[in-house]
Amino acid sequence: MNACCTARIARRRTRSARAWCRARAPVRRITRVGLTMTDDVITLAMGSGGRCSAELIDTIFLPVLGNPALNALDDAAELRIEGARLAFTTDAFTVQPLFFPGGDIGSLSICGTCNDLAAKGAVPAAVAAAFIIEEGFPVEELKRIVRSMRESADMAGVHVVAGDTKVVRKGEADGLFIATSGIGSVMPGMRVSASLAREGDDILITGTIADHGIALLNTRERLGFTPEPRSDVGHVGEVVTRIAPLGARIHAMRDPTRGGVAGVLNEIARASGVTMILREDALPLRPEVRACCELLGMDPLYMPNEGKLLVIAEHGATSEILERIRGTRAGRDAAIIGSVGPRRRSGPAPLISLQTAIGARRFLPPPEGEQLPRIC
Amino acid sequence: MNACCTARIARRRTRSARAWCRARAPVRRITRVGLTMTDDVITLAMGSGGRCSAELIDTIFLPVLGNPALNALDDAAELRIEGARLAFTTDAFTVQPLFFPGGDIGSLSICGTCNDLAAKGAVPAAVAAAFIIEEGFPVEELKRIVRSMRESADMAGVHVVAGDTKVVRKGEADGLFIATSGIGSVMPGMRVSASLAREGDDILITGTIADHGIALLNTRERLGFTPEPRSDVGHVGEVVTRIAPLGARIHAMRDPTRGGVAGVLNEIARASGVTMILREDALPLRPEVRACCELLGMDPLYMPNEGKLLVIAEHGATSEILERIRGTRAGRDAAIIGSVGPRRRSGPAPLISLQTAIGARRFLPPPEGEQLPRIC
Repeated sequence: MNACCTARIARRRTRSARAWCRARAPVRRITRVGLTMTDDVITLAMGSGGRCSAELIDTIFLPVLGNPALNALDDAAELRIEGARLAFTTDAFTVQPLFFPGGDIGSLSICGTCNDLAAKGAVPAAVAAAFIIEEGFPVEELKRIVRSMRESADMAGVHVVAGDTKVVRKGEADGLFIATSGIGSVMPGMRVSASLAREGDDILITGTIADHGIALLNTRERLGFTPEPRSDVGHVGEVVTRIAPLGARIHAMRDPTRGGVAGVLNEIARASGVTMILREDALPLRPEVRACCELLGMDPLYMPNEGKLLVIAEHGATSEILERIRGTRAGRDAAIIGSVGPRRRSGPAPLISLQTAIGARRFLPPPEGEQLPRIC
Repeated sequence: MNACCTARIARRRTRSARAWCRARAPVRRITRVGLTMTDDVITLAMGSGGRCSAELIDTIFLPVLGNPALNALDDAAELRIEGARLAFTTDAFTVQPLFFPGGDIGSLSICGTCNDLAAKGAVPAAVAAAFIIEEGFPVEELKRIVRSMRESADMAGVHVVAGDTKVVRKGEADGLFIATSGIGSVMPGMRVSASLAREGDDILITGTIADHGIALLNTRERLGFTPEPRSDVGHVGEVVTRIAPLGARIHAMRDPTRGGVAGVLNEIARASGVTMILREDALPLRPEVRACCELLGMDPLYMPNEGKLLVIAEHGATSEILERIRGTRAGRDAAIIGSVGPRRRSGPAPLISLQTAIGARRFLPPPEGEQLPRIC
């Protein structure tokens, strides 16, 4: 643990943080079952990006709306229109608080959408934004958020080409929600999907994990950690453009947002029907984030990121891919963190395991319950 | 006034309806000024689709996010990607109640998005949907809404290819909001925009006006009108496909949702720099809707529609266009309701005027204030 970091944490803050943690039951300790679609009302856990979200999708959305593009459950759907190969994605952003170290709901909404397109191997072409605003929301804050959207859009070289604004009465929404959607042009040679991971592939991450989750937690719960953890909200598009020439050897890409690295890898493993093993000592983690996680009992593997990309590629290509990623501004801390194992056996066996620093092995199940509501 | 309709309205209901009306100050009677961007907080009026919405867009969004596609302020933006000519649109749906005679938030969200594409002369190719759900929302209602989305999507021949679900705590949203976005392929020969209306053009509407607004009002405020007014939620895509061969002679199309016919025509007149004149006796209006409007003191020209299209086209082509529209299921009540007049004089002169049945003329300013919050 980083002594400098922990020494500065007020005792009162630490106690309240621990209480917060217990109240929200860290992912790996949750044992409650049957809270999902046996319920007759929507629960917070169904928006967690974990097992309950998957059940919501599997039992309500896919049986009715299902089609090949939607069923792939990738970050973006792939379409062909008039011969153009396009990616199309949407996301609702309900993050709380709206402003946090490293970003705000504006930058988050643009980066989130552009990263979903990038994770499908696409260059963003246009973004649309729909705002749901609570009556009484400060105009100055809205202006700040819109400026932040513009800056993020400029960084991705994209315009916000369409928009909509709805205002609801006081108490009918919590400040501001933004739903963004994006269209992109899939780069030639790119054909990635959550269902294409193969045994023997390596798993890479483009940088440090858990930054966004810890930054949000520290701000929202006023935990007072110093140095103040900052969100990693940012674009991964440059990384994807750099590795695109190796596209044929890249099988799957995802940005590990809700559910974190463990959550998203569980989704890929499930879709591809494979197992995966991660190496704890290979996980890039900022010292202050590691310290916060240890103190709070949070598992960084389940904490969301907002400027990182998981890349699953042929073993023989990963050293070149890693070199290319490290040559970008967003990818300096990139690392190979594990590999894809054999196809899973039938039954409910865990898909992802972690080899710990002392050589033990622990399983990483899909997240269950809601660890951090309104994180994005 | 339809005696049958009014006779059945309980006196108590009528009083409460009149009180509701006064509280919300019908558009044409609003005289309050300075409630818009001189305020430092967002007001309900800024989501009305009227003057305050325009000011919000003009002062906050366009100066920062502006680009040619967004500045056009059409229902959908036009883009070229890899040679394909595409339309792209987004809308947030916050309608209350979620279920109403003739539709629900599910059908509304799909029809609204497909109609925005159709109004740009495009055939819908794909829709994406982002859900913001309040914790505790009934699963059965969500299932019903998702089924309704599927039915509406089938009618338009389109798939929901991407989605997102966020759940917020109880009290942080009001039941369910849906943001949908859509991509479409612009039909050859179609080049419509709000800025292309010209002097001498005719103004057509594809059917009866104000149906959605009156249906919502009757349901939400439990006014008890019988026969029960039904929303016109539906697709206008068939109409657009039928008139597409005359595309070169069609200059502008819009679906008159928020702000109604008068609101949307004000936007077109402003963008094109023209005036317009409507004929009251040409406006198609269901008897029960006319009766409700008269009783409540609501102006049907400002009431929203959700399955209608305004078409502004060369005078010489309108009889053929009208015939084609009337040949579709959605366009049986289509009518020519007015024409585009000379370019507007400088200054704040009203852009739209109505020739009443008795030959008088009244102006139709852009809607101001919020007549019907959460109508779509």
